[in-house]
Amino acid sequence: MFTQANNPLNCSVGSVSFQPGARTNWHKHAGGQILLITDGIAFYQERGGVKKILNKGELVSCPPNVEHWHGASTNGAMTHLAVGPNTDKGPVTWLEKVEEHVYLK
Amino acid sequence: MFTQANNPLNCSVGSVSFQPGARTNWHKHAGGQILLITDGIAFYQERGGVKKILNKGELVSCPPNVEHWHGASTNGAMTHLAVGPNTDKGPVTWLEKVEEHVYLK
Repeated sequence: MFTQANNPLNCSVGSVSFQPGARTNWHKHAGGQILLITDGIAFYQERGGVKKILNKGELVSCPPNVEHWHGASTNGAMTHLAVGPNTDKGPVTWLEKVEEHVYLK
Repeated sequence: MFTQANNPLNCSVGSVSFQPGARTNWHKHAGGQILLITDGIAFYQERGGVKKILNKGELVSCPPNVEHWHGASTNGAMTHLAVGPNTDKGPVTWLEKVEEHVYLK
């Protein structure tokens, strides 16, 4: 993490790396989240939506309270910058694991 | 700009490049600003503070309503990611030019 959640800017910034095949659980952010891919290829999916494939330099905005997951592809590591605005709205809520057939679909 | 200011995330994200010697005017953000240097060497100064020199990968957080300026060094171009949280607090306020002796100090 570059910044902590409790700061006057009400915003966290961190760089997160995933090994090939690694991904988050399903989760949601009360204040939303912005991801900017800084290395590798990312998978990103919102609940009920199709899985997106994002390349280095691409960005995705996830609205507040929308359930989603993100991670690396199967073939290589991935790093993204994660911006968490509106930290005063509350923390992340972690949900269930992303099943293999969902991850690979 | 990757995102617009008026979005559900209440946060703007953009990548900004400066030619050698180029810098912003003095200015302040009602919601604060986070800068992450993604290429080159940056100069950053808050009103009343000393000029900081930031390298690629370094980040600086400028609190809400603190007057500051940023730009490239004299010797090379610079690019930074600019995160503008709390866009609902209001826009940037632009002030006077950064004089050469201040920039070079």
